[in-house]
Amino acid sequence: MNNLIAVQTILEQYQAVRQLTETICAPLMIEDYVVQPMADVSPPKWHIGHVTWFFETFVLVPHKKGYKVFNEQYPFVFNSYYESAGARILRTNRGNLTRPSVEDIYKYRAYVDEHMKEWLSTTALTEALHDLVTIGLHHEQQHQELLFTDIKYILGTNPLLPKYKDAAPIEQVTSLSNEWLPVEQGNYQIGHQGDGFFYDNEQGVHQVYLHDYQIQDRLVTNGEFIEFVEAGGYQQFQHWLSAGWVWVKENQATQPLYWYKIDGEWHHYKLSGLEKINPYEPVTHVNFYEASAFALWSGKRLPTEFEWEIACRHYAPTIANEANFSDDGHLHPIPQQNGHHQLYGDVWEWTNSSYLPYPYYKKAEGALGEYNGKFMIDQMVLRGGSCATSRNHIRPTYRNFFPTHSNWQFMGFRLAMSL
Amino acid sequence: MNNLIAVQTILEQYQAVRQLTETICAPLMIEDYVVQPMADVSPPKWHIGHVTWFFETFVLVPHKKGYKVFNEQYPFVFNSYYESAGARILRTNRGNLTRPSVEDIYKYRAYVDEHMKEWLSTTALTEALHDLVTIGLHHEQQHQELLFTDIKYILGTNPLLPKYKDAAPIEQVTSLSNEWLPVEQGNYQIGHQGDGFFYDNEQGVHQVYLHDYQIQDRLVTNGEFIEFVEAGGYQQFQHWLSAGWVWVKENQATQPLYWYKIDGEWHHYKLSGLEKINPYEPVTHVNFYEASAFALWSGKRLPTEFEWEIACRHYAPTIANEANFSDDGHLHPIPQQNGHHQLYGDVWEWTNSSYLPYPYYKKAEGALGEYNGKFMIDQMVLRGGSCATSRNHIRPTYRNFFPTHSNWQFMGFRLAMSL
Amino acid sequence: MNNLIAVQTILEQYQAVRQLTETICAPLMIEDYVVQPMADVSPPKWHIGHVTWFFETFVLVPHKKGYKVFNEQYPFVFNSYYESAGARILRTNRGNLTRPSVEDIYKYRAYVDEHMKEWLSTTALTEALHDLVTIGLHHEQQHQELLFTDIKYILGTNPLLPKYKDAAPIEQVTSLSNEWLPVEQGNYQIGHQGDGFFYDNEQGVHQVYLHDYQIQDRLVTNGEFIEFVEAGGYQQFQHWLSAGWVWVKENQATQPLYWYKIDGEWHHYKLSGLEKINPYEPVTHVNFYEASAFALWSGKRLPTEFEWEIACRHYAPTIANEANFSDDGHLHPIPQQNGHHQLYGDVWEWTNSSYLPYPYYKKAEGALGEYNGKFMIDQMVLRGGSCATSRNHIRPTYRNFFPTHSNWQFMGFRLAMSL
Amino acid sequence: MNNLIAVQTILEQYQAVRQLTETICAPLMIEDYVVQPMADVSPPKWHIGHVTWFFETFVLVPHKKGYKVFNEQYPFVFNSYYESAGARILRTNRGNLTRPSVEDIYKYRAYVDEHMKEWLSTTALTEALHDLVTIGLHHEQQHQELLFTDIKYILGTNPLLPKYKDAAPIEQVTSLSNEWLPVEQGNYQIGHQGDGFFYDNEQGVHQVYLHDYQIQDRLVTNGEFIEFVEAGGYQQFQHWLSAGWVWVKENQATQPLYWYKIDGEWHHYKLSGLEKINPYEPVTHVNFYEASAFALWSGKRLPTEFEWEIACRHYAPTIANEANFSDDGHLHPIPQQNGHHQLYGDVWEWTNSSYLPYPYYKKAEGALGEYNGKFMIDQMVLRGGSCATSRNHIRPTYRNFFPTHSNWQFMGFRLAMSL
Repeated sequence: MNNLIAVQTILEQYQAVRQLTETICAPLMIEDYVVQPMADVSPPKWHIGHVTWFFETFVLVPHKKGYKVFNEQYPFVFNSYYESAGARILRTNRGNLTRPSVEDIYKYRAYVDEHMKEWLSTTALTEALHDLVTIGLHHEQQHQELLFTDIKYILGTNPLLPKYKDAAPIEQVTSLSNEWLPVEQGNYQIGHQGDGFFYDNEQGVHQVYLHDYQIQDRLVTNGEFIEFVEAGGYQQFQHWLSAGWVWVKENQATQPLYWYKIDGEWHHYKLSGLEKINPYEPVTHVNFYEASAFALWSGKRLPTEFEWEIACRHYAPTIANEANFSDDGHLHPIPQQNGHHQLYGDVWEWTNSSYLPYPYYKKAEGALGEYNGKFMIDQMVLRGGSCATSRNHIRPTYRNFFPTHSNWQFMGFRLAMSL
Repeated sequence: MNNLIAVQTILEQYQAVRQLTETICAPLMIEDYVVQPMADVSPPKWHIGHVTWFFETFVLVPHKKGYKVFNEQYPFVFNSYYESAGARILRTNRGNLTRPSVEDIYKYRAYVDEHMKEWLSTTALTEALHDLVTIGLHHEQQHQELLFTDIKYILGTNPLLPKYKDAAPIEQVTSLSNEWLPVEQGNYQIGHQGDGFFYDNEQGVHQVYLHDYQIQDRLVTNGEFIEFVEAGGYQQFQHWLSAGWVWVKENQATQPLYWYKIDGEWHHYKLSGLEKINPYEPVTHVNFYEASAFALWSGKRLPTEFEWEIACRHYAPTIANEANFSDDGHLHPIPQQNGHHQLYGDVWEWTNSSYLPYPYYKKAEGALGEYNGKFMIDQMVLRGGSCATSRNHIRPTYRNFFPTHSNWQFMGFRLAMSL
Repeated sequence: MNNLIAVQTILEQYQAVRQLTETICAPLMIEDYVVQPMADVSPPKWHIGHVTWFFETFVLVPHKKGYKVFNEQYPFVFNSYYESAGARILRTNRGNLTRPSVEDIYKYRAYVDEHMKEWLSTTALTEALHDLVTIGLHHEQQHQELLFTDIKYILGTNPLLPKYKDAAPIEQVTSLSNEWLPVEQGNYQIGHQGDGFFYDNEQGVHQVYLHDYQIQDRLVTNGEFIEFVEAGGYQQFQHWLSAGWVWVKENQATQPLYWYKIDGEWHHYKLSGLEKINPYEPVTHVNFYEASAFALWSGKRLPTEFEWEIACRHYAPTIANEANFSDDGHLHPIPQQNGHHQLYGDVWEWTNSSYLPYPYYKKAEGALGEYNGKFMIDQMVLRGGSCATSRNHIRPTYRNFFPTHSNWQFMGFRLAMSL
Repeated sequence: MNNLIAVQTILEQYQAVRQLTETICAPLMIEDYVVQPMADVSPPKWHIGHVTWFFETFVLVPHKKGYKVFNEQYPFVFNSYYESAGARILRTNRGNLTRPSVEDIYKYRAYVDEHMKEWLSTTALTEALHDLVTIGLHHEQQHQELLFTDIKYILGTNPLLPKYKDAAPIEQVTSLSNEWLPVEQGNYQIGHQGDGFFYDNEQGVHQVYLHDYQIQDRLVTNGEFIEFVEAGGYQQFQHWLSAGWVWVKENQATQPLYWYKIDGEWHHYKLSGLEKINPYEPVTHVNFYEASAFALWSGKRLPTEFEWEIACRHYAPTIANEANFSDDGHLHPIPQQNGHHQLYGDVWEWTNSSYLPYPYYKKAEGALGEYNGKFMIDQMVLRGGSCATSRNHIRPTYRNFFPTHSNWQFMGFRLAMSL
């Protein structure tokens, strides 16, 4: 756990994280909690039940004496993918369940929170138990990010394009830096070291050799991506990976998700509603194929996750105030401020690295071993956190991962080149 | 329009029908209004918006001077299948829309109702306009039946099996009649004659020749269907149509929809909750394949729609009090009372007739020509209305129609045999 | 069996039918025997094995003493849909099997033919056995027609459009009759009566009442269908059944199968190769949706199968010399000759009747009960035989049946109207 | 080009490679050339046309003066995936084409061979042209391997399990080595250096840092894999990647492709027919999921492609006589001989590395740029060649790649562990 919340007790942390989930959902209408417009999106009410089930199943049931589960049928509904934790509804059926109702799920939250409070207030946690609660909190923070992006998909694919909520105002900019950050060749250390929370997929600290390279000092912008679109980028197979070109054809893709050309001007749907595209903002909601095609078209390439991590450690060892997280209330990437490198926040940055285990990675025993390890195939690594990530959730070694076609997260990219 | 409501003014009729829709929805939680667990089911909020859109689009917009549509985007959301009425969301996307909210749709209803009231109160309707409003009311009655069955599917496929509402109590019976109703060979008149409302698919009065036959004097029961199930009916290809056997295999079907064997006893989900199966009740939620397989297994056959209609006209020219409609509050077929023939109400009865036009059928011009005619292929006719039909909606010539695999309506059957 | 072949002994009939199958295949290259470019098409080598398996399984094995099956594994490969006859490869896998080779299958044919010859030469057939052999011959004649149409699909969807073989020359015509054949209202007898072979689906002789109607005195032509195409018929939803419009959209259909517009002129692929469309020829390779849309567009309708049968019995009680069958070597419908009504041959005529059992129909016991009865759902009836049918295979009561979307048979239609 | 063929002129090389393709096809019946039982498999006749089209399109048309293409329609049929080379039939339609016939395709080969011979005999090749012809030869060698594996799939999924041809006899062994080959940590050079042919995906020579590890001194065997199968490996989710477990469930996988348990004993289909499994042979036809599950079950892991390459360079810098290639006629992996490390030949070895570009990789311009680069996503790297690879085709830096679910190639694996 990084220092922003390390000063809190574990109970304070628990209460802060749990409260934030409810704050995120506050603007929703009951209807918004229920649907699943594509398989990757979960209904908000499922998210808030699932994160609660996580504490009930992995903390309260095994560790709080005399704890009685709230409802015997909820585990079937709220288990996501833990084979060890028993049967569960098909992922694609989440959006068919109207019950438990939102109200009942909030009662479930309150019940579990009450028991967690009692237990955390009266129990001297072993390190293992402390870590378990902490993983539950980070797990919930991940679902908070999914709540933002799933809510965006639910509202942003609705023909009425309803607003989720107003965004914090941003400072207008009219120019951007345009430099490259060089890194010298040599052996570098990768993976999480030192104190603080980290996921098991960052484990396996190891050396990598990097050749001379440089990396953009900011994110690729909407303005730059519009050039690609208007140069016919989506019509020219040359720039695309073979699977990417299949994706373009099958989806008749001609522009990023949520973009609309209205009366000759580019608009996009943001959580604050439909608006004209600001060319200085980082481009987002592009999938790996789109990022890769842009990079090839521009004669550059995407960085590897190792290049990204080392550049980040060197050029942005700590998180600057300019970094744009969910805490900042923009809920959208913002234009570069004061030459800020944008390595943290704004958008998850696609890298050209597959999500694979580090050399010394060991899958944990039991259900928590299913947390990360079993997904280490056919996904690409993204780094740095986004405008929907909590500021205290991110670190330079954090590895996010999604399949190549995913675009509903706040995903963007920066370019790199070998020297 | 039959005599039960003919004594009312058209405005009174309008208000009664519109009110019933809201009464049906009253027990729902907001969540229940939103989902679409299979393509054939529509979210309740879509139904209540769609029937309102029908009046707005086909009555108010063309006929009420100065009428302003409630929301320019609603037609895109609430058009069902009228090509003439413009673009519309994909049917399978209905369950992805959280907005307009339930509250907004009720406002839409109130707005349209207000305008309809004003217009109906102040306009001397031509016969054509009277017919148009009447068709809108019958259309809404059809959606009332779909509301019952879609709500049943939404709640009945939820792992919590929540109750919709309590059912009116029924009288217990311990025996059933077991006779056959004979009809003599000869030419008979088919199709709607006389006064009162009817759909265009009943039009084209014509003669058919029927050979001697007899038809069961009641519906096939749960008890009889359990025999079929327990005799291995779902495991023996001999009884099934080829397409039916494919359906059995692909769906691993072993019993009707909503049936569960719990501790050795057959239960089913009803709108009043899970309960033990009453063997004297008519079987329901069987598709055409299941009805046909039972018939073949029992050495009999299903009647044609013509055989059904003539038997109905002869043996049940008027609707008896014992007939079980949605007005009666059982919301499930009930055991035969007093030897009642069950030709009206309880379940829609599968016939062995395809839904095809009558000899003199003419498709109407314009959007209303899309009401029935374009569906006259690859569907089977069902007759008689169900426990979810309004008593004043049905008549002997009424032709309902569904594809062979459909089982989520209150569908059942009776047997027939040639002599 | 009708009189053309009744003068032959059953062995002579057997040898004639079996020989024709091989004659049909003679122009094929080995490669052409193997593929299955869509699920409904079977590889020619499968057909010639399957019809042989039919005689082996239903005649030789049960009835010829000491008969030893040619290869124990062939039944698995060559059973089509007889559940009673054991397991079989998936229909869609037929085109994946390179073995048994064409040569081996011809050896299989020779082996079975030898045994059949021996058995037929030395056995006094009971009537039941005579009927069984006869059904095997008619079964093989049906597969001969499928051979023509499957070969056409295999070659006609190949980008090289190879010719199957030259067609017999036709007499050019420059005008057509344009009359209607009236039938008076009354009760009529439907179904097969008298001597000669018939399928069980023609069984159940019964009366139907027909209202006054008239039917075209010839088939709808290419020239007339081109008018529909060029009037935008495939772009206007009004003419189409709802399911037909879905078919148009999903298949981006703009014209019949095998039609091409080349340099502004309509061409089509025939078994004799690509050529300019003759407007006087009957249109063919249209599915039910296309026939129905044309009929609605033209303000007429399709006849029912009963209307067709009675008109046929009245206006064409016997098969004229002008009737165009596979025996005539055109392998394509030909322009009307001498005012011939074209009720037999040329194209199977879509009717507006569903394929359902006649009143007194009884499914036979055992495997042959699977021949027709289990397909009596969700298919439409076609009448009259085609240019790919053997002249001695057809009769006025013959009921062919295909699903609404099928267009790879020689399917066409004529119009009807009520009076 | 490695030294085995470097002593030949380019024409001799051309003729040797082209001849081998025909030798591979010699045992086929015409039928075997035509089908495509799954999307990844191409009909043999397509392969032999495609490799010919490659020389015609990329060598003869642009470089041989006055060359006239054999048939204007062949490029549409025989282009595989080169967008730059124009339209082409859908990959999944390859198995629907009976024409061009096998005979015509051999004529096409002869025509192109004649022109190539003339051109190679009379032209002083620039280095670029020499490289172009060489790439064409290596391309054909790749298709030779696909011919073996596609033929195996075509015959091995046929219920008759026909033999392709007899295999060269092998020496029986009754024990195997069981050692680990250690490699010390440090920086190592990866990628192709020096003379000889290599693909562009080996380009981008660069350093990687490897931690201490060791790798098995032989391949995992059938005997070892049977232990996994019989210990319930396919029934226990714990060993599987999440996507792998989905694959197991969807395919109801319980053992490797081509394995059968007959009367309690494990058999498998080999190109020489069905036989009892030899436990000392390397396991093959396992996909990445199966390899990964076995590795996790055994407490080890798969090596990365870098670990494999460095171990290979160190422990097997040259190809031993014991290495089992297509030249050796076994057409199946063979038991370890004389402690041979089996790094070359036998089976392609799955590594835990994704197929991604090396740091300095540059996609070539034009059609050949489509050869490898556009596939660098969502595939895993395999190393070392197989029993279906030509001995002169392989080298330590050779990178093969397939999606995780692929199992129809001769794929196997060895284990590794960090120290």
